[in-house]
Amino acid sequence: MMVVSAKSVVCLCFLFSVCHVRGAYIPPKMNRTILNLLKHYNISKEEKYNGQLVFSKEAIPEKLLEKRVFMRGVLETYETLISKMLKELPTPLPDTKGGVGEGGAGEDVRTELNYILQKVLELKKNQYKEHDNLLSSLKKLISIKMDNATVQSKALGELPWLYEEASDLNNEIQSRRRRRQARKVKTHQRG
Amino acid sequence: MMVVSAKSVVCLCFLFSVCHVRGAYIPPKMNRTILNLLKHYNISKEEKYNGQLVFSKEAIPEKLLEKRVFMRGVLETYETLISKMLKELPTPLPDTKGGVGEGGAGEDVRTELNYILQKVLELKKNQYKEHDNLLSSLKKLISIKMDNATVQSKALGELPWLYEEASDLNNEIQSRRRRRQARKVKTHQRG
Repeated sequence: MMVVSAKSVVCLCFLFSVCHVRGAYIPPKMNRTILNLLKHYNISKEEKYNGQLVFSKEAIPEKLLEKRVFMRGVLETYETLISKMLKELPTPLPDTKGGVGEGGAGEDVRTELNYILQKVLELKKNQYKEHDNLLSSLKKLISIKMDNATVQSKALGELPWLYEEASDLNNEIQSRRRRRQARKVKTHQRG
Repeated sequence: MMVVSAKSVVCLCFLFSVCHVRGAYIPPKMNRTILNLLKHYNISKEEKYNGQLVFSKEAIPEKLLEKRVFMRGVLETYETLISKMLKELPTPLPDTKGGVGEGGAGEDVRTELNYILQKVLELKKNQYKEHDNLLSSLKKLISIKMDNATVQSKALGELPWLYEEASDLNNEIQSRRRRRQARKVKTHQRG
């Protein structure tokens, strides 16, 4: 009996620490606000549970740098999405005349959306400012108009230097790796 | 006179080594094929020299890892572009009846485009296999339909885990950095 309860305590402690670490970054107010907003932005149960996510977990890259660039992209997507939702709200009434109708409810939603937007922007600004150039460069790649004859011709003409750049870069990385390996072996031998 | 020629030899050797290193990765056949293709994909001099590049040099990130992710994106863009150009070619004739018309010229271009595509795929496969799905994941982000009410509601519901993922990731990176710093200080102290 003692063994079982000791095991349970260990399990509980482990679960608690995991939950604490995982859940430490979402303020309860943010969770509450999202739940409130979902009452306003309501969809049918069929749509809600059709198994299709907007952001699928499989899309998140495994490597740290790539994951980071992707997560910055996710935050930017939320920034655009919430700004769009704010614009779609009915314009506020010029002055309140005692009505608790559409205008009043709209103002609650506006405040809540603004709060969520602010939380997203804070996280982006405080923790994701490094990789903004890479993301915008990749977005430019994606937006290249490939049907255009001028683009096709110019891209062909630009291939030699880009191909060279791509080959050179790999050699540079490999020689760095070799230097690092050599340094490690040296340190190991010293130790 | 001797000094000048010694200097020239040094300069020439330097230039040769630089050119050799820089130009080592583009096979001459690839260069020739691109020049040939440019005769087919011809644009006016005004368009050619209007100063607008498809892939601007400023878009290439400075940091090695970011540059690598970007260059893989460039190779993927070429893959899509050349595949598109191949599809746009006139369909080959069922059998050759002695004509050297449109069909014949189209076949040369097809062979040349296929060769270039193969070179791009080789470089991607041999040297860039690590960075697999970032670009396609970012493409998915960009294509999210933000006007759609279902998308808006679902995205709100998915925010908590994504926000947590984004916060966790940053903490993970910072603790890795601290470990690396600690290791460096240790190695330094040993040395």
